[in-house]
Amino acid sequence: MGLIVQKYGGTSVGNPERIKRVANRIVKRKRAGNQVVAVVSAMGDTTDELIELVNQITDNPSRREYDMLISTGEQVSVSLLAMAIHELGEDVISLTGSQVGIITDDIHSKAKILEIKPDRLERELAGGKIVIVAGFQGVTINNEITTLGRGGSDTTAVAVATALKADLCEIFTDVDGVYTTDPRMVEEARKLPEISYEEMLELASLGANVLHPRSVEIAKEYNVKLAVKSSFACSPGTIIKEVEELEKNIVVSGVACNKSEVKLSLVGVPDHPGIASKVFTRLAQESINVDMIIQNVNYDGVNDITFTTDEDDFKQTKKVLEEMKDELNYRELLCDTEVAKVSIVGAGMVTNPGVAAKMFEALAEEGINIGMISTSEIKVSCLIARDKAEKAVRAIHSKFELDKLGIDND
Amino acid sequence: MGLIVQKYGGTSVGNPERIKRVANRIVKRKRAGNQVVAVVSAMGDTTDELIELVNQITDNPSRREYDMLISTGEQVSVSLLAMAIHELGEDVISLTGSQVGIITDDIHSKAKILEIKPDRLERELAGGKIVIVAGFQGVTINNEITTLGRGGSDTTAVAVATALKADLCEIFTDVDGVYTTDPRMVEEARKLPEISYEEMLELASLGANVLHPRSVEIAKEYNVKLAVKSSFACSPGTIIKEVEELEKNIVVSGVACNKSEVKLSLVGVPDHPGIASKVFTRLAQESINVDMIIQNVNYDGVNDITFTTDEDDFKQTKKVLEEMKDELNYRELLCDTEVAKVSIVGAGMVTNPGVAAKMFEALAEEGINIGMISTSEIKVSCLIARDKAEKAVRAIHSKFELDKLGIDND
Repeated sequence: MGLIVQKYGGTSVGNPERIKRVANRIVKRKRAGNQVVAVVSAMGDTTDELIELVNQITDNPSRREYDMLISTGEQVSVSLLAMAIHELGEDVISLTGSQVGIITDDIHSKAKILEIKPDRLERELAGGKIVIVAGFQGVTINNEITTLGRGGSDTTAVAVATALKADLCEIFTDVDGVYTTDPRMVEEARKLPEISYEEMLELASLGANVLHPRSVEIAKEYNVKLAVKSSFACSPGTIIKEVEELEKNIVVSGVACNKSEVKLSLVGVPDHPGIASKVFTRLAQESINVDMIIQNVNYDGVNDITFTTDEDDFKQTKKVLEEMKDELNYRELLCDTEVAKVSIVGAGMVTNPGVAAKMFEALAEEGINIGMISTSEIKVSCLIARDKAEKAVRAIHSKFELDKLGIDND
Repeated sequence: MGLIVQKYGGTSVGNPERIKRVANRIVKRKRAGNQVVAVVSAMGDTTDELIELVNQITDNPSRREYDMLISTGEQVSVSLLAMAIHELGEDVISLTGSQVGIITDDIHSKAKILEIKPDRLERELAGGKIVIVAGFQGVTINNEITTLGRGGSDTTAVAVATALKADLCEIFTDVDGVYTTDPRMVEEARKLPEISYEEMLELASLGANVLHPRSVEIAKEYNVKLAVKSSFACSPGTIIKEVEELEKNIVVSGVACNKSEVKLSLVGVPDHPGIASKVFTRLAQESINVDMIIQNVNYDGVNDITFTTDEDDFKQTKKVLEEMKDELNYRELLCDTEVAKVSIVGAGMVTNPGVAAKMFEALAEEGINIGMISTSEIKVSCLIARDKAEKAVRAIHSKFELDKLGIDND
């Protein structure tokens, strides 16, 4: 008994048959005595089909119009799901981001949720209805439609769970939990029964495509208990909660791999104070997220500044840096789009020295060169050549004996 | 120079190529010094594709959810059209019914526009923007999405033209004007250069699928000058205006045919006062539109009540009448779904006696039986067997020599 927020991804509602299956699952939860809110993504290929239409019209769509267009995908899936639930005899209502009152900032296609008004949701729940919410979308205070960017529906679900003080937020996806690494890459990958917000956050940021980092961030901030489950199987999935509540802290619980970063280097930048600040402030103004950063000061008084960013932002990042050439007075701009970031994550790492060294050793044994290194208390990341990524993940996974973790891979 | 509202139907924006063509047409109008608002329907087959999805989920979709779903079609077409116009270098914004402030009643799938708030439209026009408005849709005062039903985009266009006091409302469609009859049925059909609101209203109601009657009604009420034009050709089309402004009143200007009506007869209803009122009040409460009505009082004190309605409403009409069997105490309910209504329309008819007789003669000459007759000042309609409809239209068109009207069929 409780208030449960569920989230179903695009694959889970990919066709009418699957929509009916999801409807059944929701109704079962409701009939077990729970209040249920389901956040839903666009049906499977809808978004790609819409983008294909855009490509036939313009190479450079207005972001505002793009959001207008793309947000229709969820409106389709929520109304169909509501019809399917209605067909099962339950009271139900679907709501767009605008109708819920999911207020975002005005950064189109990458909007951040500022506030979710609970009134409408609470009213519908109090009326005994199942509520279906369009994921991935919101509105600005001026009623302009926005989308949240990649993984936005996860964020919607967690934010809705937060706004409603839900007892549990279940994320249904096409994988049945969080694994020690991508099972499509490494057969020996094991499913983790539980993991801390912090570890999940690092894994998410590092490209383990299970949950969007923003959604984990919000869950952590408001202490919303998350469950990642398969929409197709009935296995228990992975629970994500506070580190203190974990049964045990594993030293290294996962190996992640991100092949969508690119590396940019400003070579020969005169060593004046404030140069790095200028670069990264400007990039932030353009809403470009920077990941790893290295700055080398050379003996001849010039700097090399190297950083990575998502490949979606590559073109614009390059353009911005080229515009700043005179201002920064750098000698050369080098770009490498053939990089990958492999990382190990584990809440127990901080109390176990030598973890990073062991990872470097695994890479060295395979003859893989490390381009950049970055570390945090629960994470070590290395930038390597993209074509070596899978080999690296396998080697590290095996080095830390993750395939031998005493965890059932049901 | 002026404020022009245009409306483009689903065929006109059926694919990205056509959307670009429409974008060009709009931009040309704008660059000629006009303010332009374009009301747009869903792309060609979008609505059918969405309905196909519904059919796979339920036979009886909630009307509220149906509107949620179907309204996405226009949101797709307006955003794509805005992108195409933006690509041509013009300032543009697309708006949903909700964003414009198109307020309707809450009869889902058949909503009526109560009010269009001009503020947002005026603000965008004042800012120099072309405004693209999603046709066919609105919102209730509670922000529930509604659709206007068949031909709804025409109504949106005329209502927007009214709200903005536009100088002209151009309806672009897949025909290039209003014809003396359906050119697909009768090759000799001629295009009318102008026609009165009243005649158009009768033609529209009678199934000449050029303009929705509701849109002509509003145009007449607020004296909005309408032009019906082809989106593919550049011919002048047909102007619709007040009867006093017409160059000449033609006795019979058109022959219309409606094959989507069905006939229902309540046979043997006891002749008490208020019986007809009971029937039609109840049908009105169910939002069922009734067209022709005949009541015969027999000598034995019982009535036969016969009427026609749209075949979309047939199932529900039948259900309502069956529910009322005890209350009305009728003997039998007869239904005929194989009927058609052919009609002649002309503003000059009222001053020319014998017009109806000439029509009946044409039908008699072809051996076509007349089931029901209804007349107005500018119209005569006959209900006949559906499989005789084309033959009837041809005969009447020829009898009134409409193929010899001195009107250019450019």
